Amino acid sequence: MPKKQKAICLVSGGMDSAVTLAIALEKYDVAAMHAYYGQLTQDREIKAFRDITNHYGINETMAFSLSHLTQIGGSALTDPDIDIHTGGIDKTRIPNTYVPFRNAHLLSAAVSWAEVLGASAIFIGIVEEDSSGYPDCRESFIEAFNKAVNEGTRPETNLNIIAPVMHLTKAEIVRKGMELNVPFELTWSCYQNTEKACGVCDSCILRLKAFEDAGFDDPIPYEGDE
Amino acid sequence: MPKKQKAICLVSGGMDSAVTLAIALEKYDVAAMHAYYGQLTQDREIKAFRDITNHYGINETMAFSLSHLTQIGGSALTDPDIDIHTGGIDKTRIPNTYVPFRNAHLLSAAVSWAEVLGASAIFIGIVEEDSSGYPDCRESFIEAFNKAVNEGTRPETNLNIIAPVMHLTKAEIVRKGMELNVPFELTWSCYQNTEKACGVCDSCILRLKAFEDAGFDDPIPYEGDE
Repeated sequence: MPKKQKAICLVSGGMDSAVTLAIALEKYDVAAMHAYYGQLTQDREIKAFRDITNHYGINETMAFSLSHLTQIGGSALTDPDIDIHTGGIDKTRIPNTYVPFRNAHLLSAAVSWAEVLGASAIFIGIVEEDSSGYPDCRESFIEAFNKAVNEGTRPETNLNIIAPVMHLTKAEIVRKGMELNVPFELTWSCYQNTEKACGVCDSCILRLKAFEDAGFDDPIPYEGDE
Repeated sequence: MPKKQKAICLVSGGMDSAVTLAIALEKYDVAAMHAYYGQLTQDREIKAFRDITNHYGINETMAFSLSHLTQIGGSALTDPDIDIHTGGIDKTRIPNTYVPFRNAHLLSAAVSWAEVLGASAIFIGIVEEDSSGYPDCRESFIEAFNKAVNEGTRPETNLNIIAPVMHLTKAEIVRKGMELNVPFELTWSCYQNTEKACGVCDSCILRLKAFEDAGFDDPIPYEGDE
């Protein structure tokens, strides 16, 4: 059997990237990358990253501190003086949880590591339509960034950025994850709590609706659960 | 007089970015950004950044730690086990001082900060032809990255990346700096020393030739000087 090509998968600890990881593992030898940047639930997300990568027996893992995103601020996720938005998704504006240009930082780290490892693909679990409306989650951004990667790296580096759940609905992502036996119980999505998910931030609302629409129970604990 | 627009200028501490800063200051209200990433001469470069921005009386400055570039390694600048290349510029290969995709990290930080500050331009002192041959110093990279910036940021963010010395020779950069009274004595270029420049690393060789070709004395101390 030919040796599998190497890929880096970004694993935030949330449900979309866990399903993306399961998809990447079908065809690639995967190194898993996580980044933290002073967001409120940083330690809970690092735990989720460790739990998920341990579940899959991934040997090559890297967790990066992007502390300059905290210095820069400008987001409810990194500035404790800005309240996390709750009360439902508002599709007409960029939510205050948008961390300016965050995915460019995550992808740049993945690209640098990919050049050192000789990887040929980078998997990222972004979702374009059925999500929060962050500008750095759009396919047009990924395409332009991929072009910049090809122009700005060594001639022998040949990297594709793959976003396999980009155009799925959140319910389709849950179904795909169930098919692939993704350990959703190890994932974490809530923007503000670390023991029981709040159920009211945008990220919880999207997740709860995803499981409901897909017809499955979400296995993580929520505030107010029995 | 109309209020000047805001720009962020990347200031490494070296000669090209010091001249770029002087050019940016002619038309913009400038915030200065520096990034360090465990490179051998990190502290000397931060000192140069502080000295240059103090010289110009710049109030808004930010120095970011990109420590994940040290974790990733793969460069003689960030891995002490790899010797800095000396003995002359070899145009046929990417030098071992290339830090994988570094300029994408620097520009991403500038873009994130620009979104928070409401800046309209980012100045970067990269040089394409007459330099070390790093892939992330090419105009094609900057153009592609600028496209990714426009796709991946808020709709109201409208940022141009400006690289005013991109196509100058190093000697032309020195002459331009002399015209603008750039304090070259405060800059630092050497890749390996922090008190007297080595004179033999690629960066020193490019700098010494720049001053010689331009017909000026380089004001910084070199090993072996009287």
